[in-house]
Amino acid sequence: MKNENIKISYPNSEKIYKRGTLYPELKVGMRRILLTPTVKNEGGKRIELPNNPVVVYDTSGPYSDPNIEIDLNKGLPKLRQAWIEKRKGTQMYYAKKGIITEEMEYVAIRENMNCEALGIKTYITPEFVRDEIAAGRAVIPANINHPESEPMIIGTNFCVKINTNIGNSHENSSIDEEVEKAVWSCKWGGDTLMDLSTGTNIHETREWILRNCPVPVGTVPMYQAFEKVNGKAEKLTWEIFRDTLIEQCEQGVDYFTIHCGIRLKNVHLANGRLTGMVSRGGSIISKWCQVHNEESFLYSHFDDICDICAKYDVAISLGDGLRPGSTYDANDAAQFAELDTMGELVERAWAKDVQAFIEGPGHVPMHKIRENMNRQIEKCHGAPFYTLGPLVTDIAPAYDHITSAIGAAMISWYGTAMICYVTPKEHLSLPNKDDVRTGVITYKIAAHAADLAKGHPGATIRDNALSKARYEFRWKDQFNLALDPEKALEYWKTSNKVGGKFCTMCGPNFCAMRISQTLESGECNEEVV
Amino acid sequence: MKNENIKISYPNSEKIYKRGTLYPELKVGMRRILLTPTVKNEGGKRIELPNNPVVVYDTSGPYSDPNIEIDLNKGLPKLRQAWIEKRKGTQMYYAKKGIITEEMEYVAIRENMNCEALGIKTYITPEFVRDEIAAGRAVIPANINHPESEPMIIGTNFCVKINTNIGNSHENSSIDEEVEKAVWSCKWGGDTLMDLSTGTNIHETREWILRNCPVPVGTVPMYQAFEKVNGKAEKLTWEIFRDTLIEQCEQGVDYFTIHCGIRLKNVHLANGRLTGMVSRGGSIISKWCQVHNEESFLYSHFDDICDICAKYDVAISLGDGLRPGSTYDANDAAQFAELDTMGELVERAWAKDVQAFIEGPGHVPMHKIRENMNRQIEKCHGAPFYTLGPLVTDIAPAYDHITSAIGAAMISWYGTAMICYVTPKEHLSLPNKDDVRTGVITYKIAAHAADLAKGHPGATIRDNALSKARYEFRWKDQFNLALDPEKALEYWKTSNKVGGKFCTMCGPNFCAMRISQTLESGECNEEVV
Repeated sequence: MKNENIKISYPNSEKIYKRGTLYPELKVGMRRILLTPTVKNEGGKRIELPNNPVVVYDTSGPYSDPNIEIDLNKGLPKLRQAWIEKRKGTQMYYAKKGIITEEMEYVAIRENMNCEALGIKTYITPEFVRDEIAAGRAVIPANINHPESEPMIIGTNFCVKINTNIGNSHENSSIDEEVEKAVWSCKWGGDTLMDLSTGTNIHETREWILRNCPVPVGTVPMYQAFEKVNGKAEKLTWEIFRDTLIEQCEQGVDYFTIHCGIRLKNVHLANGRLTGMVSRGGSIISKWCQVHNEESFLYSHFDDICDICAKYDVAISLGDGLRPGSTYDANDAAQFAELDTMGELVERAWAKDVQAFIEGPGHVPMHKIRENMNRQIEKCHGAPFYTLGPLVTDIAPAYDHITSAIGAAMISWYGTAMICYVTPKEHLSLPNKDDVRTGVITYKIAAHAADLAKGHPGATIRDNALSKARYEFRWKDQFNLALDPEKALEYWKTSNKVGGKFCTMCGPNFCAMRISQTLESGECNEEVV
Repeated sequence: MKNENIKISYPNSEKIYKRGTLYPELKVGMRRILLTPTVKNEGGKRIELPNNPVVVYDTSGPYSDPNIEIDLNKGLPKLRQAWIEKRKGTQMYYAKKGIITEEMEYVAIRENMNCEALGIKTYITPEFVRDEIAAGRAVIPANINHPESEPMIIGTNFCVKINTNIGNSHENSSIDEEVEKAVWSCKWGGDTLMDLSTGTNIHETREWILRNCPVPVGTVPMYQAFEKVNGKAEKLTWEIFRDTLIEQCEQGVDYFTIHCGIRLKNVHLANGRLTGMVSRGGSIISKWCQVHNEESFLYSHFDDICDICAKYDVAISLGDGLRPGSTYDANDAAQFAELDTMGELVERAWAKDVQAFIEGPGHVPMHKIRENMNRQIEKCHGAPFYTLGPLVTDIAPAYDHITSAIGAAMISWYGTAMICYVTPKEHLSLPNKDDVRTGVITYKIAAHAADLAKGHPGATIRDNALSKARYEFRWKDQFNLALDPEKALEYWKTSNKVGGKFCTMCGPNFCAMRISQTLESGECNEEVV
């Protein structure tokens, strides 16, 4: 595999590391964006006032560290290897025992960035992290066989996280392209990555991704099991599924989406729907149930699944096989029956020290979103919610990153811990690299909007720094602070030249910020350019 | 001006007209999207079940009527001329007298589409429209000198409307391009159009737009007044502004944004802000107040402004000169002081039978949006709210159509009647045609999401028809029902062939909808492709 152009760089930014206190060997990577000074004219004298650098959450791992050489053929450094070797239980196991692991301190540091240096009080301490994990309200997905992964936390009291989906299918794309997309997703800010490959080479594709991925990797193991029976749902067995789980645990998958919430008695509830079942895993296991007229083996073997996951500290993402595929089907009996089952299962997972979270819809009009969140909290005992959107209308294929970002921002504000990105190609085709970028940035917007609304410590720092740069016409600082500095610069360049105290949107005379500044400085009769 | 390619067509759609009852001569244009039948296989026999056409709100006017020849040099047919000629007051004047005008019946028909034919009960009757206008809760912007415009209504109990901004500046673009953008905006669904030209040829540009625009046109008259004093705010006078208003009323502008809410005593409130003033009109009049140390002539001459507007039935959009330009400045004293003043002024406008609405922010984090709406309703006595976004975070220049669509959808659900689009180039550059399209579609999404959430009669028809088409693999119907059929088809074509019962997103074996259908039909052992 070629290593050219695989490194990640951000404009005017440095890779920094913050050390642990409980574990001084911890090195938590962050990105520090350097800013130019504010220039003022005071009494004819030019003075420069420095602007603090802004430290932001960084998902790019070693790819953005100029001191680490990347060789995709060797894989990333095994950051967590030494911590793992002494372990004998899951993160939840230690949390319940009152023990703070390296991962727990790592995520506490990571969430806070440089908050405290700026005098911002934070509630996110290593002990708080431990307590949230012990209570099941947060998850650190970290398979003992994925030591390359940088610890991150999913929970309502932390930064809202975003997941990106990649993966080839029978129809499209190569392993090289998928690894490239994985790194690309990390560059733009993807917090976890699901490999949804369904084509040939599932195992090999996943291996390349895992060894080179600095963020947790999730899968839907049913996809591989389904390939093993050549796409005949009725030929699936618990044994085939179990062996697939073990295979993936051994490789290092950090979390599994499993549709254990589908019960034989509930499959018929989807019959009256406008759009039936739109979950791949859900429709496969439902078909199995119906053909065999038997309880789903994912449900009946749930304790066995938990035992496997506990051994490797793999988190379970309880998949919503009955999520609505249209706003018409939102919040119906099928959806909520499955949620009830998931509430039962999550407690059984916790009893075996398995970390778990709950997947949610899908397609939901705005006025029905709150009910989803409230029910999930009630029925699932505070386990983190992980939703796909929801899309708030069905009439905009080709823009479903937007229809879904509206719902995703709202439900995250209400309490959802992680949101699964949607690209512009949703419902239409597999996304290309550009679609992945658009999807990731769109979801970073939704997640960050929720962080602001929920009052996450330090969430406002970047907004305020960017707004100040904008007001002071520090264009490059504005772009460098943006979620997508390259695109902002590209758009600006379509009609502007560097150094101007206005942009072509308004022109010089009509620049409100320019006029506003002459007001504040009292220089009201100043000539405009 | 060239007429080539100016006509608008939508795939598999017909232009239809619905007649009035009170005024049988009324012909309300709509777009009817024709659908293919659902094909089923029952007992080996192929049967076709027809799908009802879907009638949608249509802003494209005569441009999409194949029977009307368009000549931009002659202008559009004068639809409202005969109605206007017998008038002696504004829409509000008649509404208060209990008289239903042609425009009122027109908008009632337009809002309902073919609801009643589908058995959907609607509260939107001509009498309801009259009552809303009489109470000031809704506005029909319709200058007596813009008879080419098709009546539309702005109010919280009607479809949420979207405005698009076009206009050249000193730096960019020609009159031809602006007219082309105006028609382009109507094609994609813009409900009103603001001509924000600030360059040379302001008068001429506006004339071409007005004569060829089937939707109401708004302006910020201050921009032209400011050009008349060569960009020296301090040289502005009431007389120059008044003459500009009259000039624009004579041309046919349907609504004016005027920043009458800025008061001398409140200008200083913006001083402590992170981003000062970001309204062009607001910063200009603030500068005038400060230089002259005098009350704003827009405030002190408000009754004179109303007298002029009443004569032509021009609506006043009370501009928010002190809107926040960053999430940091949201909901501050400056913003709310101006809102209080607007609440006072709107009652004075109503006293003179002038229709009015209130402009709102801007940049507001999600948790502060509701307060904006609640205060506006309380302070402004139910007058329609017309907001710019709001953007829910500041960190995504180049994606501010999305940051703002999140806020726009939410505030529309809470009650905002019209939202002003934001394009991807916001904060960076003037939008091109492609940006206008992206901005319009993004805002149609936000508006429609709110219509669904508010339960507008018939809002779900299009969503359900599209979802049904999606589930039945009627791909072309799905695209034709989409807000942007062309883009949906284009994306789908990147990797698909017509006629398939799956798309490359999942491939045939993993298509959940395909599996789901075999479940419902009981054909569980069917071979997959």
